[in-house]
Amino acid sequence: MQERAKVTRRSLLEAAAQLFAEQGYAATSVNDISARSGRTSGAVYFHYTSKEGIAVAVVEDRFATWSQLAASYGDETVPPLERLVALSYDIAHALTRDPVTRAGARLWVERTVINAPIPDPFALWTAATTRLLAQARLAGHVNEGIRPARAARTLVPAFFGLCTLTEALENATALDNRLTDWWHLTLLSLRPQPSPGNLRTGR
Amino acid sequence: MQERAKVTRRSLLEAAAQLFAEQGYAATSVNDISARSGRTSGAVYFHYTSKEGIAVAVVEDRFATWSQLAASYGDETVPPLERLVALSYDIAHALTRDPVTRAGARLWVERTVINAPIPDPFALWTAATTRLLAQARLAGHVNEGIRPARAARTLVPAFFGLCTLTEALENATALDNRLTDWWHLTLLSLRPQPSPGNLRTGR
Repeated sequence: MQERAKVTRRSLLEAAAQLFAEQGYAATSVNDISARSGRTSGAVYFHYTSKEGIAVAVVEDRFATWSQLAASYGDETVPPLERLVALSYDIAHALTRDPVTRAGARLWVERTVINAPIPDPFALWTAATTRLLAQARLAGHVNEGIRPARAARTLVPAFFGLCTLTEALENATALDNRLTDWWHLTLLSLRPQPSPGNLRTGR
Repeated sequence: MQERAKVTRRSLLEAAAQLFAEQGYAATSVNDISARSGRTSGAVYFHYTSKEGIAVAVVEDRFATWSQLAASYGDETVPPLERLVALSYDIAHALTRDPVTRAGARLWVERTVINAPIPDPFALWTAATTRLLAQARLAGHVNEGIRPARAARTLVPAFFGLCTLTEALENATALDNRLTDWWHLTLLSLRPQPSPGNLRTGR
């Protein structure tokens, strides 16, 4: 019974996520979620109290938490700057391909029409970026003029703007190329400046 | 009479913009616009047909057009990269301080709940950025490895993400500092790479 309740909860959450990702919060009703999941509207109210409740649960399930990120973020065998770049591609892929993540991002953008506080992942992303930049700087892979916390506070919003706007203006499949172009530019600004000595000896 | 109609149209547009900027599209009714402007609801319907109509007019008035940008963008006495940076601050200031521009940007973000196509300025910004980067590259102020059109397609979404997310996560007054940090990083990646010759002679 406990297990059955879990299965029901999950199928409601995934049906709601699909609908929120496809048509947005305002256009999705509890009846739509019930129809898509094959459960009753009563099940939605029983498990999530309200449409707001299931929206918050969708955002918390993936977009606002990124529990899967912690693993690759903490792998110390990979250089920190490489981990940062890899994380950004993982996030971009989830934002373009995973319905629950997509729904979470769309609900966050639509948060002004939702009658409940919608959590976001940006403090988490900024802290992780700051830390990886600081490690990269210590390792000499990032130039000394970069202030990790300040750089993170501009890179995170710029990255999220790139993800959401590229999809809105072009399409989801364009994002990989845009992200690669963006990293080419950004890594140019982060990398250590060549010292005259290195150039003089031709190294 | 013609003049009086113009004044009425403008006062309706500005009242609607204030309300859309403050509370968003969904929470604003034609009655609210009528009350804020001191005109009748009939005047809203007469001049703009519907709530969608006045929303589109607000977006087109500033956010989607930026007619004022053309002037500073075309001033050939100022180096192209300097014009690009100056334009970005002008846009950031309008996005944080001018109610009609703010309303336009918010309506664009909320476009999925508006039953009408909402225009955007991004093709215009991308074209202007491409052109200024190409001019700067020709003048030797940007390194030869930069492809103007590709760089513009990443810089424009990153810039807009920075503007909208900084305001959402911090506040409008933080934007000037974030934008300065962002340009510090971005200019590092755009500037010409020092040649070994220059360094060797200590210039």
